[in-house]
Parts: sequence; structure tokens; C-alpha cells
Amino acid sequence: MLSNRLNMIQASPIRRLYPYSDEATRRGIYVYPLNIGQPDIETPKEYLSAICNFEDKVLSYAISRGVPELINSFVKYYNKHKIDFNSDEIIITNGGSEALLFSMLALCDVGDEILIPEPYYSNYNALAQIAGVNIIPITTNAESGFSLPDKSTILNLVTPKTKAMLITNPSNPTGKVYSEAEISLIREIALEKNLFIIADEVYKEFIYDGLDFISFAHFEDVEDKVIVIDSISKRYSACGARIGCVASKNKDLMKGMLKLAQSRLSVATLEQVGAANLINVPDSYMEEVKIEYKKRRDLVYNALQEMEGVICKKPLGAFYIMAKLPVVDAEKFAIWLLEEFNINNETILITPAENFYATEGLGRDEIRISYSINLEALKKSMHILKEALKVYPGRK
Amino acid sequence: MLSNRLNMIQASPIRRLYPYSDEATRRGIYVYPLNIGQPDIETPKEYLSAICNFEDKVLSYAISRGVPELINSFVKYYNKHKIDFNSDEIIITNGGSEALLFSMLALCDVGDEILIPEPYYSNYNALAQIAGVNIIPITTNAESGFSLPDKSTILNLVTPKTKAMLITNPSNPTGKVYSEAEISLIREIALEKNLFIIADEVYKEFIYDGLDFISFAHFEDVEDKVIVIDSISKRYSACGARIGCVASKNKDLMKGMLKLAQSRLSVATLEQVGAANLINVPDSYMEEVKIEYKKRRDLVYNALQEMEGVICKKPLGAFYIMAKLPVVDAEKFAIWLLEEFNINNETILITPAENFYATEGLGRDEIRISYSINLEALKKSMHILKEALKVYPGRK
Repeated sequence: MLSNRLNMIQASPIRRLYPYSDEATRRGIYVYPLNIGQPDIETPKEYLSAICNFEDKVLSYAISRGVPELINSFVKYYNKHKIDFNSDEIIITNGGSEALLFSMLALCDVGDEILIPEPYYSNYNALAQIAGVNIIPITTNAESGFSLPDKSTILNLVTPKTKAMLITNPSNPTGKVYSEAEISLIREIALEKNLFIIADEVYKEFIYDGLDFISFAHFEDVEDKVIVIDSISKRYSACGARIGCVASKNKDLMKGMLKLAQSRLSVATLEQVGAANLINVPDSYMEEVKIEYKKRRDLVYNALQEMEGVICKKPLGAFYIMAKLPVVDAEKFAIWLLEEFNINNETILITPAENFYATEGLGRDEIRISYSINLEALKKSMHILKEALKVYPGRK
Repeated sequence: MLSNRLNMIQASPIRRLYPYSDEATRRGIYVYPLNIGQPDIETPKEYLSAICNFEDKVLSYAISRGVPELINSFVKYYNKHKIDFNSDEIIITNGGSEALLFSMLALCDVGDEILIPEPYYSNYNALAQIAGVNIIPITTNAESGFSLPDKSTILNLVTPKTKAMLITNPSNPTGKVYSEAEISLIREIALEKNLFIIADEVYKEFIYDGLDFISFAHFEDVEDKVIVIDSISKRYSACGARIGCVASKNKDLMKGMLKLAQSRLSVATLEQVGAANLINVPDSYMEEVKIEYKKRRDLVYNALQEMEGVICKKPLGAFYIMAKLPVVDAEKFAIWLLEEFNINNETILITPAENFYATEGLGRDEIRISYSINLEALKKSMHILKEALKVYPGRK
């Protein structure tokens, strides 16, 4: 009696191991959460303070495109990143997720296709299912550090139904930061094949080793084809705010997007008030966050390098590492860690990576580690992983 | 290059007259907003105070189904209304709009049909367009006070593609409250034809003249077929909170809905904290609101009765009145009011009703008046409407 599309949506793979994790907790085992991208950094106090200064007696609908103060704060923020968006080119959304859904709905009819490098953020599947869009994966692998394949491989995937390429940069789940050459390649294909580029850049601040972030919005040649997906969730450790935006210089697109925004009336007013005040957070906040995350990345990466049989190139961004393990089935390993393994009553919750791939069979021996918990916890977690791999019966 | 479905979505008819209204304001004319359902009642202070007491250092994602405190407050709230939902049967949504979208996505595949009495809330069109659902109107009219037609008329509209009936009770835009007989009729048809009932009951508190509210969730015979759409927007004058919920005793449905909820991760955490505290608002708040709205309804209704050629039965709920005017084209009249008419530099913004009808040609001489502004403003507004109708050149 329910719809086929509902039945086709998979339950979140990131959350699927919670029952095992809960059961471990009930047995008195402490479980380090390496599974979710929920930063442990404090949210800037500017957020809540602005909300508590709200003086209107009536909590009214905000306008559908977003409150001007927040839109203007995004304009200023983009200016800092040498990205030129004016206030007409930005619509506030319920987090990056809604910005993604709006983009799929705006570009695709049912049955249309979007190219996405795999492994990719598994939530894209649910959003594509809702929009009736087929995701066509551009396969990449751990050995190459998840670099894009050559041009002809990507061109071979383009059909008359292809409407866009969705690039997550820096990438969740891989931590990959696309090189200038890779970004040029995507632009070239977009221009040749007349495709949109949906640039999910919510991790843009999380880039290490002195690298500069290159946004697709930096390039005039594709400016009418680029849709930037953004969110304050990660950079301000404000996942619970559900404030994001979609930005594009394509006027027709933004006009259409506004109708989608009107269909849900508005984004929560107070969250917009809080988010608008984040422009007043000093730059030092993000610099310190970045230093902290770099330390975490180094700790996890170095620890993985020391584990026999683990394959993993150093990721340059976001706060995730994908690693290929010397196990047959990473999901079984993840469950075994929760059910049968512990060191001093502590174990870890990791995300099996198979669901980040669309191609059947890929990623079965890979995991994603989120390093959004503190250094001490990460150190213990890596020790647990190392010792577990030594004794796990399902090794290759 | 954009999707057909995007092009098919109409811009909000409620907001379409804003350019004319803005222009009038620029010319120094004060415009009474009779067009939107934004109550002017103060939001209970319990909302913001709970948010400002929030003590977590990190504004994390809430769980996808909603924070337990808020879900439990809905359970208690429903108990007060003799509606039995437990916490597993409720998912918190971004306002009633998301609850509606989730319902459509969960019940219908692309091309499936939902029956809705027309005139109906025009936003349903955009949501149906997004979900690829066809709305089949059950036509009702001003002369009968928007009562449902007889059973055979409705049965004739049911096809193998029909998945649900969507009933807004009390109704936006008509203010209609469905009688026990009408509710029985809908239940009968749902049982006979195995259809879901999507019961949009966000205005349930706004019922006048001593009537008791009858929820579709009061009836065990249809309990696995009823989906209640709810929102705190109207009853607590908290439209900007974007807090609603979807509730059903159908376990498979709720399990599927949870996947939809996971696809957008969560609803804003602080708004849920604020909304959960509304359970502590004394009952007297709503009683006073109701007394105030009844006065407004009476004022507008009585004024309309005194205008020659206006047809309008007394609505029993919500805060809208639909009226048939002695004009050829209500949209032209609405624009004329903004461009060419004023009394002491004051005029009114009304909503032409044509867009509330799916059937071509219906409602062209009707308007919706929202009485969510204060009595003094309504009194002046009705005077303006009365005088305008006397001199309007486009009279029938």
C-alpha cells in the first residue's frame, strides 16, 4: 500500500549499526563514535546570544528566500573566499540537504541522471530517490586517493538524460580535495556536454597542509552552470541549526528555486537570526578549529599507516578518512567490534563503506572514520582498531 | 534546461500581489493585509525562554524522528484532545508542509492521485508537483458553505491510481468545519476503496460556536489509514518555528516516514526545545485566542452579510472566510483595490480565490479573507471593501 519509492529508500547506513552499539553500551562497554560527522567543537556563543536578543512579540514566518541579514552575511562570507554572489543569488535552506534536494528537483525530471564520483555521501541516495533521479557513479578508488578517472571515462557515462555532475569538495566520505586539474576537467565536461555542476562545498574550511580551497564558483566560464550547496553545520559546529543555502548566478534557476522555497513557506526564523550573527565570529575561531582537525587527521592517518594491510592515502580535507582494511567484509568487522571485541571495556563504532558506493560489490573491505571527536578519544580508538585487526577472525 | 516539474509549479498566489501592494505602500497608502494566515497574537514566552535556557555547548543534530521531549509533549497534547498516539507514532517535521510532503511521497508513486475537496490550500499544488502526485478535486461551493457532495459523486472520482483523500479540517481557505456526517462519509469511502485519509488538522483549536472538534484519529475503524498532519504554527502563533509533526498508527507507514526524516537528518534542535515547552502554556492562552478570533470572525462575517451581492455562509473554524463577490474577476478587483482605490490613504490586500480551485474557471469571483489581524484593522478593512464594491467598475 505504500509507495515503491518509499520502499526503495535505504535506512541510513551510518545509523544502521546503532542497535549493536546500544547493546554494547548496555553491557557496560564504552563505544567511541567514529561514525558520524557531528563535530565536538563548541558552537560559537554568537549563535544563541543573537537568538536570545530576539525582540519581536510574534514569531512570524520568515520570507521564503531567507531573512536579508542572513543572506547578506553569506554574501560577505563568500567575499572573504573570493566568491562573488549577490543577495539575489542566494536562497536559505534547511541545511545542505534541502539545498541538494532543491537542486535535484530543479534540474531533473523523473528518470534523469546525475553523475557523482563514488564513494559518495550515502544520503544522496535517499534524496535522489525522493526526486526520482538516477545516480550514475564515477568510480574512484582508495589506491589512487579517490582521484577522478580520465576524461573519456567520465564522458562515456554521459547520456541524453544526464543533467548535472555533483561534486562534494572536500569530500565526505573520502576527505579528498579535488586538484586544480580535476576541477578543470569537470568544468570542461560541463561546458562540452552542457551539464550543471552541483558543488557541495560544505567542508570548504576543512583543508589542510596549506592548500587553498578552489570553489567551482571561482570560474566565470561555468558561472551559469554552477550551483553551490552550503551549510553552517560543519564550519560553526552548528549541525542542529539546519541552516544552509543554495547559491547560483543562473537567474532562471534561482527564480525556479524560489518556488520550491515557497512550497515550504520558510526556514525557522530564530535559526536564521542566530546564523546571521555568525559573521561576527572572529576568524581565529575557524583557524583554531582547523589546527585541531589537522592534528586529528594526522593522528588517525599515521595510526592507519602503521596497521598491516591497511590502504589509505592521506586525505587533505573534511574530517573523514576512508581506509581499505585487510578484512573480507567491513560490516561484519564493524559488528564484531561491537559484539565481541573490547579493550578495557572500550570499543569503536566505524562506518562500513559499502553503502557509499553505488556499484555493487565495491567498498566491501573499506570503512569510513570520522575524526570529529577529540585527540585522546581518537588515540584510544586507533589503538582499539589496531589490536582488533590483529585478532579478527575474518581477516583476508 | 530546468526541469518540467519546476516550470509547472506556480508562484504562490497568496504572495503574487505583493508587487502591487509594495507599490501602493510606496505611494503612501497603508495596506491592511487580509491575505496571509500569519496570526498577530503574541507567541507564548515559554517558547523563547526554553531556548535561552539551552545549555549544551555544541548545537548537535537532533535525532531524525524528533527530540523525545517534543514528541512526548505532542502525546500529552493529543491526550487532551482524546486522541491516542504514542511516541512511536509521531515524527517531528519542518512545519505542516513537510508532514504533507512526506505523506504524499510515502503513499504515492509518480502519477498517483489524491482526492482533495476544492477550494483547497494552494500550497498543496506545489507539494504535489514536487511529489509527482495528481490532485483530483472534489468540487464544493460557496452557496452550500463548501459542504461535501454526496457519496456517489466522490466515488466516481476514485480510480486505481487513487491512494488517499486529503481533508483540511477546519479548512484553509474556507473556514469550513466538517460535520460528523461528512467525516463518516470520508471514513466509509476510505474503508470501501482502501484509501488513506491525510487529515490536515492544524487549525483544530480554531472552532467556534461551541462546536466540538472531531479528528479522524478519533475512529478505530480507520486507524491504520489515518495520517494526521499537525503544526504549532497557528495554535501558538509560532509560524516561524517551523515545527509540525506527522502522526499515524500505521507502523509500516511510520517506519517508511522515518527514512524520509533521515534523508534531511533532523529538524532544528533549538526550535524543538522551544516547542516542547509549549505544553506548559496554560489552557487559558488558547481560550483567549479563540474568543478573540470568534469576535473577528463575527465582525467580518456580519460585515460581508451587509454588502449587496456578496455570498458567504458563516464559517465555523480556522481564521479564513471565502466570499463570492459581485465582480467578474476577483483578481482584477484585488489589483484595482491596490492601484486605484483608497479611503483616507488606506486600502486592503485580499487573496483572489481562483487559485484555490483546481477546476478551470471556478472561483473567479471569489476571495479569501484572512482575519488574523486585529478587530480595529478588520473593521476598517471591511468598510474599505464595502465602499470599494459600490464603486468598482468591474461589477457584474
